[in-house]
Amino acid sequence: MKLLAAPARLSTVSATFEQDFAARLHWSAEQDAAIEQRVADILAQVAERGDAAVLEYTARFDRLQAASVAELELTQAELQAAHDGLSAAQREALTAAARRVRSYHEAQKKACGQSWSYRDEDGTLLGQKVTPLDRVGIYVPGGKAAYPSSVLMNAIPAQVAGVPEIIMMVPTPGGDKNPLVLAAAYLAGVTRGFTIGGAQAVAALAHGTATVPKVDKITGPGNAYVASAKKRVFGQVGIDMIAGPSEILVLADGSTPPDWVAMDLFSQAEHDELAQAILLCPDAAYIDQVAQAMNRLLPELPRAEIIAKSLSGRGALIHTRSMEEACEISNRIAPEHLEISSSEPHRWEPLLRHAGAIFLGAFTTESLGDYCAGPNHVLPTSGTARFSSPLGVYDFQKRTSLIEVSEQGAQTLGRTASVLARGEGLQAHARAAELRLKP
Amino acid sequence: MKLLAAPARLSTVSATFEQDFAARLHWSAEQDAAIEQRVADILAQVAERGDAAVLEYTARFDRLQAASVAELELTQAELQAAHDGLSAAQREALTAAARRVRSYHEAQKKACGQSWSYRDEDGTLLGQKVTPLDRVGIYVPGGKAAYPSSVLMNAIPAQVAGVPEIIMMVPTPGGDKNPLVLAAAYLAGVTRGFTIGGAQAVAALAHGTATVPKVDKITGPGNAYVASAKKRVFGQVGIDMIAGPSEILVLADGSTPPDWVAMDLFSQAEHDELAQAILLCPDAAYIDQVAQAMNRLLPELPRAEIIAKSLSGRGALIHTRSMEEACEISNRIAPEHLEISSSEPHRWEPLLRHAGAIFLGAFTTESLGDYCAGPNHVLPTSGTARFSSPLGVYDFQKRTSLIEVSEQGAQTLGRTASVLARGEGLQAHARAAELRLKP
Repeated sequence: MKLLAAPARLSTVSATFEQDFAARLHWSAEQDAAIEQRVADILAQVAERGDAAVLEYTARFDRLQAASVAELELTQAELQAAHDGLSAAQREALTAAARRVRSYHEAQKKACGQSWSYRDEDGTLLGQKVTPLDRVGIYVPGGKAAYPSSVLMNAIPAQVAGVPEIIMMVPTPGGDKNPLVLAAAYLAGVTRGFTIGGAQAVAALAHGTATVPKVDKITGPGNAYVASAKKRVFGQVGIDMIAGPSEILVLADGSTPPDWVAMDLFSQAEHDELAQAILLCPDAAYIDQVAQAMNRLLPELPRAEIIAKSLSGRGALIHTRSMEEACEISNRIAPEHLEISSSEPHRWEPLLRHAGAIFLGAFTTESLGDYCAGPNHVLPTSGTARFSSPLGVYDFQKRTSLIEVSEQGAQTLGRTASVLARGEGLQAHARAAELRLKP
Repeated sequence: MKLLAAPARLSTVSATFEQDFAARLHWSAEQDAAIEQRVADILAQVAERGDAAVLEYTARFDRLQAASVAELELTQAELQAAHDGLSAAQREALTAAARRVRSYHEAQKKACGQSWSYRDEDGTLLGQKVTPLDRVGIYVPGGKAAYPSSVLMNAIPAQVAGVPEIIMMVPTPGGDKNPLVLAAAYLAGVTRGFTIGGAQAVAALAHGTATVPKVDKITGPGNAYVASAKKRVFGQVGIDMIAGPSEILVLADGSTPPDWVAMDLFSQAEHDELAQAILLCPDAAYIDQVAQAMNRLLPELPRAEIIAKSLSGRGALIHTRSMEEACEISNRIAPEHLEISSSEPHRWEPLLRHAGAIFLGAFTTESLGDYCAGPNHVLPTSGTARFSSPLGVYDFQKRTSLIEVSEQGAQTLGRTASVLARGEGLQAHARAAELRLKP
């Protein structure tokens, strides 16, 4: 049977558009009670029994026997050997990607990750100092979704932030190590690595064990167990975000070759059957061309079945009244990846308020951003771009407010604080301010 | 019976210091299963039945009957009337505080909340645009801990960020409204307010009801129900942080009048019996003077009982070998509020890596920062300053990465992306990049 790319065809002029659109967008993170309970148990066991519990879970879930957690540690020599053993093409590509990702995050640190302060008219110093976290853990999925690019995207911003210790956790089911992942860890400056995965890896990082050091923050994507564990330790340690399925939204004015747009939609759909690929376009004839291109190009792809399922389940080609309306709909979706596949990308960009990353113009296929353009590929999914941001240097820094009040400043500020503190019934606050007043 | 201030007396030279210190610091957020279940029910009910459920819970928990949620809305006229009805001293103090808080957060936005971009040598545009959230909810505790200053500290950064809609939720048990809270909402630019509290307020903001609009992020402190509800909706909406009891750490070199330090310690201890006040000082005689001052000053304070309980349960006066050692211990605690009560505050500040806010010099009592110095008083507690930051303009903004690759840039980037995508087994990603290569 020939595979078909069968995304839903919607039109904003249709009377049923709102309900069709809502049905396509609907997705909710499964809150599987059974998973939650098992994760709670794993966290409790690792907190209580440390290394011994980690070894048991690793043997059970990853079929990997070890006499000690130290045996699960990846040595720097092993990381370097993986790097040196790559083909020249792979080594060069990985090195080029790491260099660009580092250079972008250095610019980011310069733009928004610097300490700042000023003195007001009373001589009061106010500001914030920005400092790196002491130690972070990055989780790297293993098995079928082992992405070396994710190692770069998590470790490099931490390194640029100045985090002295970066601990990588990567499951290696059956002991099978991915050389590209190890090589990426070498290039990205991972300090220590362990072949531990799942909720037990998150637990070890959050609580610390005799062998695995406790970290201050855990970043990186993972399966439902990892996501549940991260959510559960949130507060004891920092976490980045809880990622949902990947999404792409293409805003097209009809000026890009239809094959390009079709392949861009596929490049999200191939991640996962739950991934979402949406095209918004005011040109019905162009939408037909993209649909034809999809059916022509689909069979040549190894992951055609996943793509077909993703598109028929969650994909959509949406005919809009105008590019302006397309922008409004995009804002309602707040997509993870947003391509403006237009000859005038800068005309539409200012209208787009919510997205993880915006790719401007026909040459900026999302795939370049995923690997090597420089910006981070860890982006808010499932509409969370309404309130959250790409992973960045700022996720590996924290801010401390600085306040230095002069004797003179304490006179005016003290009177204000005293009135307000008494209004709140906090007399010790008031008295502390009043003690600094000159008689 | 005369109340005594009886913090633990520790010394770093003691053989039992490490265990005594660990015992004092120990605090863990209660994970009360009964509260969690009730909160889960409230969230589910409000998600399902909207306004009707909100009205029922408000009647039950806040003894406040209303025929509709619209009746629970605070009008702008009511907020303004509360402001106009304050005493001149209170109105001026609140206005002065709001002005300084706004001016600090404007400086913060300028320093670290601006969009940025650059073009690399290939002509590729890279950067991030920074935009405000569309709509946020701020939770303001009612009843015994109703703090108008918290209204300013939550709403003003949102307003400075450019958030167009700020929805305030404040419980008013028995219908009792706090005029200072309402006046602060007026000054801080709150768009809409409702007298709804508890988990039902968080639920209404996170899910939206017929009357309460769904928001993108919820900030502000609350009791165990509010904290549990915030943690549960985290991911559907953004949240700020889960706050624990308040803390102060004073690093003293003995140059500040002992009464001042004693009162500063009290000003945290008076918040809550679980609040923590710690003094670190290398001068044993000075510690004695502070202890004497505490016992002398305690009886004159209305909240003396709370202070005494907080100090005896969690307070500590710690004699250190040196100021350097005091700084190291402070870093292990990562306190919410850190006073450098020293004649040389700038000598010690660079040694302090983790704190919510640092108050430099004897005149900078924490109380000035709580009310009116300008920086935010919503700060990371319970050691979370290791990885998190004061509430700020950045909490009400999000970032969108921008990438525009030129045709020329697509040639080099495309080759790199193609190699890496094939290494990850993602052929559609590879093909999308390859389609942009010139033949």
